[in-house]
Parts: sequence; structure tokens; C-alpha cells
Amino acid sequence: MRYTPLTQAIQGETVDAWDIHFKATSLKEKDDSVIVLSIGDPDFDTPPTVVESAVQGLRTGDTHYVEIEGREELREVIATAHQSRSGQVVTKENVIMLAGAQNALFASSMCILEPGDEAIVLQPMYVTYEACIQLTGATLVPVAMDKHNGFCLDYTALKNAITDKTKAIYFATPNNPSGLMLTQDELQFIADLAIKHDLWVVSDEVYSQTVFEGQHISISGLDNMAERTITLNSLSKSHAMTGWRVGWAIGPSTLIKHLSNLSLCMLYGLAGFVQQAAYTALTDPEALAESERMRTTYQRRRDRLVKCFHQHNNLSCITPQASMFLLVNVSETGFTAQQFAESLFEQQKIGVLPATAFGACTSDYIRISYVVDDQQLEEACTRIDNFMAQISHEMRLAQ
Amino acid sequence: MRYTPLTQAIQGETVDAWDIHFKATSLKEKDDSVIVLSIGDPDFDTPPTVVESAVQGLRTGDTHYVEIEGREELREVIATAHQSRSGQVVTKENVIMLAGAQNALFASSMCILEPGDEAIVLQPMYVTYEACIQLTGATLVPVAMDKHNGFCLDYTALKNAITDKTKAIYFATPNNPSGLMLTQDELQFIADLAIKHDLWVVSDEVYSQTVFEGQHISISGLDNMAERTITLNSLSKSHAMTGWRVGWAIGPSTLIKHLSNLSLCMLYGLAGFVQQAAYTALTDPEALAESERMRTTYQRRRDRLVKCFHQHNNLSCITPQASMFLLVNVSETGFTAQQFAESLFEQQKIGVLPATAFGACTSDYIRISYVVDDQQLEEACTRIDNFMAQISHEMRLAQ
Repeated sequence: MRYTPLTQAIQGETVDAWDIHFKATSLKEKDDSVIVLSIGDPDFDTPPTVVESAVQGLRTGDTHYVEIEGREELREVIATAHQSRSGQVVTKENVIMLAGAQNALFASSMCILEPGDEAIVLQPMYVTYEACIQLTGATLVPVAMDKHNGFCLDYTALKNAITDKTKAIYFATPNNPSGLMLTQDELQFIADLAIKHDLWVVSDEVYSQTVFEGQHISISGLDNMAERTITLNSLSKSHAMTGWRVGWAIGPSTLIKHLSNLSLCMLYGLAGFVQQAAYTALTDPEALAESERMRTTYQRRRDRLVKCFHQHNNLSCITPQASMFLLVNVSETGFTAQQFAESLFEQQKIGVLPATAFGACTSDYIRISYVVDDQQLEEACTRIDNFMAQISHEMRLAQ
Repeated sequence: MRYTPLTQAIQGETVDAWDIHFKATSLKEKDDSVIVLSIGDPDFDTPPTVVESAVQGLRTGDTHYVEIEGREELREVIATAHQSRSGQVVTKENVIMLAGAQNALFASSMCILEPGDEAIVLQPMYVTYEACIQLTGATLVPVAMDKHNGFCLDYTALKNAITDKTKAIYFATPNNPSGLMLTQDELQFIADLAIKHDLWVVSDEVYSQTVFEGQHISISGLDNMAERTITLNSLSKSHAMTGWRVGWAIGPSTLIKHLSNLSLCMLYGLAGFVQQAAYTALTDPEALAESERMRTTYQRRRDRLVKCFHQHNNLSCITPQASMFLLVNVSETGFTAQQFAESLFEQQKIGVLPATAFGACTSDYIRISYVVDDQQLEEACTRIDNFMAQISHEMRLAQ
């Protein structure tokens, strides 16, 4: 049977990079000593008050069709929170609930990109961006952050990437996998370009509640950016709710209307009991305190890992400002990222991700997710130390 | 800002028809005497064992990322049930879980339709088909069932609608809004055409567990149809789980792989606790018995309504074989369907849907959903009697 070109456009995921992850999770089922640091899924459980809110909804029959855009009180809470953080003036008319930030990325792309368009994406970029952009028929134009300069924005590269076909600029801040945030100056530069060339900006801010240092800035709050910015967010990371599939898009009300039409034929709304849980996550003091405890725990884990990697001369680690990931440059070890990850798994049963999947600029890096408890993390550091000692020994022998 | 042509393609919903529904649900909040017969949302609650299964999943932390295609044991149960009903030989490799049959319709269309294609849809058709097909850039070619012949398949019209651009034939059996099922002969005719012209067939079978008389037949089970048939189904209607957003597509394993790639960037899987609930819905004896009780209840309500409408000379009612809907021809009253629905709402506070939204062949009809309890249904019949008495009186005066 014949399939559409779209089915080709969504096959682009760099599969090799995930091999070790799949091996690690598979072995983990049989061998508890495997340490899986290769996935962006929090080890925490969803805060209990959030769970009980869904239970309450389920048991009281909140299992019927709901408003396609999502419930008003939930969208109002999201609007208020976004306005207070970003400075962008928004109401519930600027918010639509969707099945996760991934779904919001997908749906937004369908509303703004078409065949012939170019969409610039700042790299490193999360792997599913490729499919979301390409399935619209648009071309993804990667612009690498400057890996020689702490992964700052490469102003010249971004400016030069814009053509008369450019329709949008996509980025994630804080970034997955780097954990770095775009600065005020960088965002202003992007905003100026977007305004000058009449471009959409898609700002993925799913890690904006998991910030350790510095201040997260939403580009939507910069002057004249509200009309052209789509802000994506979710509860997956902030509240350990990855599996719930609840997120949202914030943007101009016309966009929200289009997204609502799309949701009508794509999803037909989001479960009411999930929306009740989302409301609790964003308003209940215990749920918010739990989210804050997760953040400080990630910070403590990050500090432990950074300390570990700084001890090894052949590794250089970018200290993330946010998220649950960090990048480690392994090129000085003589291994490629893929080889390093494979060896680390084979010799030490630690699963990490070669960061090649996130773009060429991180091809020398591995991504480590700190989504294991302190004990496992300590054990991981010990094994990494042992692994590096072995490598150093072999390097000396080879000289 | 510029939006894509897709945003125009998904605006096609016939909005007028829903006006009365929105008015009715809005007034219902203030005035409990309003009877809403205009929506396809069961008045039943989800079976308690299904709810408790989700509760169990939520409370035991089944809130993390899951397999994109859905859990193996769930897909196996669905495959086994489909095979035993349809005769089509399938395994879990032929099944993918998606966020409702609506989402499965959307995603399947993206994998098989592209600009320039034509997709035939048998009318009456559910309203969101238009958007799902048009957003791919394909053209929807409606083929009306024969309204002068009990809404049987119009063999000639279907045959004549096929061009060298035709890529697929879509239909729902049992049908919403008619509640009628395609017969073995009709399905064989469609199958022969599909094989001859190498077409996909998309068979929406969400009402296949709500059958009162006759036998539901899956076209996927006919000779040589497995390779070209996409069967859509869900738990929304069979288990009163509309708001849960859980459904699936069954088709060739290559299609399932494409749908899996699409789900990766569109949804990133379906909540684990929802999948646990779905598994319970399909396997737990109490849940299945509850589903069966719903079916017999719909049948009792259908009988009551059919009896009501048969008493009125100016109304003719198509007795549905399945579903939770029935169609009533109101043309003999001198009203259009829209006028009839408006008057019925204004005079008797009953919300029904003009069936114009479902295609030209049902423009003389109103759709009635029997999703209210016996007491309300009895009251609705009384009010309809009163309304018709009033109409007859006015018609006599006018003569």
C-alpha cells in the first residue's frame, strides 16, 4: 500500500543514540545494578495531592467530554502564572490545553509551517523537533550554539540563516540537553530578528520551573513579541508528570482558535480528571512545595555530578543552570561519544546517551540525566571514576 | 501573523447545527427541566472497576513515560478480540493505542492522504471527518447513502465517485448519526472496489459494541482486505469513557510503524494509568457486564423513542440497529430541520441536532441522542407528543 511522504519525514530520529538506552533499560529488568542515566523521566512520583485530585475526578464521574480548549479555571491559572513570570499580558483566551508540550509543539507547527517554509532551530535540540517540523513539509534549518564559547548564541550564524523562506525560529530555554538558558541579550537579538523579518518564535520552556541559577526569561515578554511568540510548557518535568500527557501552548488568541480547531479533530480535548490534577499541581501548596523539593534535589544531584566530572582531566562538563541533564565532552578520551557510552555501559553498566542525536555541535558529548536517587548517583560517580581510571591507564600504556 | 492553509481546512465544521446544542446545555445549567438529546456522550458513568484500575495505577506511580505504541498486553487483548469478531488474523503488531478513535482517524489520515488525493466518505458522516481529511490537503468526496431506500449503499454513486486520484474510502459502521450498519453485500462491494482500485479503507467501528439487531461486520475480515483496511475503535461509547481519550487503530504492521513514529512526535504515548483502565474495561467481567447493561439500556430507550415517533404521521423515523442515535425525518411538518429543532427547543425545552451537519442526505432529519434516563426520556416523549399536536393543530388552521 502507498503511504504519504509525511511518513518518511517523521522517520528521521537518530536511532543509534538510543540503542544504549534501550539496552540499559532492558538489562535493568534483569540486573538491578544497572544505572540508567539516559532518559528524561523523573524518578519522582507525581505529588500525592495531584494524584488524589485525579482520583477524586475519576470517582465523581469527571470522565465525559470536556471543553476542547481546556477548562476555563485551569487556563486562567496558567495565564496568570505566565503573565507574572514573563510580563506578557495574557488571559485564558491565549491558552489552550494539549496532550503535553510535545503535542503542543506538533500542533503549533501545523498551524504555522507549510511546504516551502524554513524553520530555524537552535541546536542542541530535542530529537522530536525534526519530525514535528518536517511533517509540515517545511525544512528544518539548524543553527548551532557556539560550542567553542560555552554554547552561547552564535549571532552571526543565526542572522545568516534567515532567508525569505524563513517562517519561524524554534528553541528550548532552558535547553535539553545542555541545561543552559538563553540570556536577555540573546533573546533580544532573536526578538529583533523575528520582528524585522516577521517570524514566529516557538519557545519551549518545559524546564523553566527547574532552574538552579540565573533567571529564566520568556521571550514572549519582550516588547512586541507577544503577537509572534508561541510558548510551550507542561507539568511533565516540574511535577514529575511525564506520563500524564498534559501541557499547553500560550500565544495570540487567533492561534489559540486555530489550535482549538485542530484539537477538535486531533484530540477532542483532554481528560477532565487530568485537568483537575493539573489545576491542583499549579495551585495546591503541597504540590508546589513538592515541585520545589524536586528542583532542589536536581540541583544537589547536578552539583554531585559536576564535582565528579571536574575531577577528570579528560572530561569537561558544562555546568547546567537548569533541567535534569548535563553534557560532558568526552573527545579528550580518544573515544567518540557513541564509543564512550557503549564502553561505559559494557564495563560499568551505566546507561548514558551520546548527544549526537541533539545536533552536530554536541557530537563530542554524552548526555547524563540525573534521575536516580542519591545512593545510585554516588555509585554512578564511583563507577565513572573507575572507568576513567581504566581509560587513563590504557591511554598511558598506549603512549 | 501568517497561518498555514491547514488552519483554513479545519474550519469547516457546520457550526449552525450545534447552536441549539450549546443553547440547550447552557440553559440546562439554570433550568433543570431542559432535556438535552443533542450530544453523543453517554449519561452513564465509566464502570467502577475501570475507574478503580486507573486509581490503582495512579497511586502506584504508573505516571511515567510508556511505550509509544501502547502496552503489549493491552494491544494483545485488542488484537485477540478483533480477530475473534472480524476473522482478520492480527497480533499486537497490528494495533496501536492512540488518544481516542478521533485521534486515530486524524493520524491514519496523515499517513495515507496527501495533497491531490481524493478520499471518499459515505454520508451521513460524523462532522470531524471533514477536518481530518482536508488537513492532509486531500479532497473529501462525499457519497450519500440512498435516502430514498432506507439509507442503503448507493452502489452506482460509489462506483462513479472513484477517480484515478481516489486513495481511500472512509465510513462508519454502525453509523453516526443513522445507527445503521453496512451489510455483508455492501461491504463486499466496497471491498471489491478497494481491491480493484488499490484503495485504503478506513472503517470507523466505535459503535460496534452497541448493536441491537443484526450483525456488525468488519470489512477487515473480508478476503484480501486486511492489507488495506484501517479499523478504528475506542472505549468511549462501549464503556462510557468519552472523556478518557483512549482508542486504537488496527491495520497492516507497516502502517502501525508509521503511526508509532507519528505518535512519537504527536503524543509521546498514552498515560499508563489510562491503559490499565482500558485493559480492565476489555477483560474484567464486571466491566464487560456493565458495558452490556449499557447496550440493553440504549436498546430500551431506542424502542421507546421509535414508538413515540411512529405515532406521528408527519414524522418518519429510521429505526437504528445500533449506536445511541436515531434520525427523524421532519420534512412533512413543513419545517426545515433547523426550524424544527429551534421550535422544539423554544417550545418544549428539548435540545436535538439538525442532521444537516452530517451531510446533504440527512438535511431533512434531526438527530436524537438517547443519553438520558427513563424518566427524562418519558418526559421527552410527552413533550414531543405535545409539540406535534400543536404543529398538527396549526397545520389544520393554515389549510
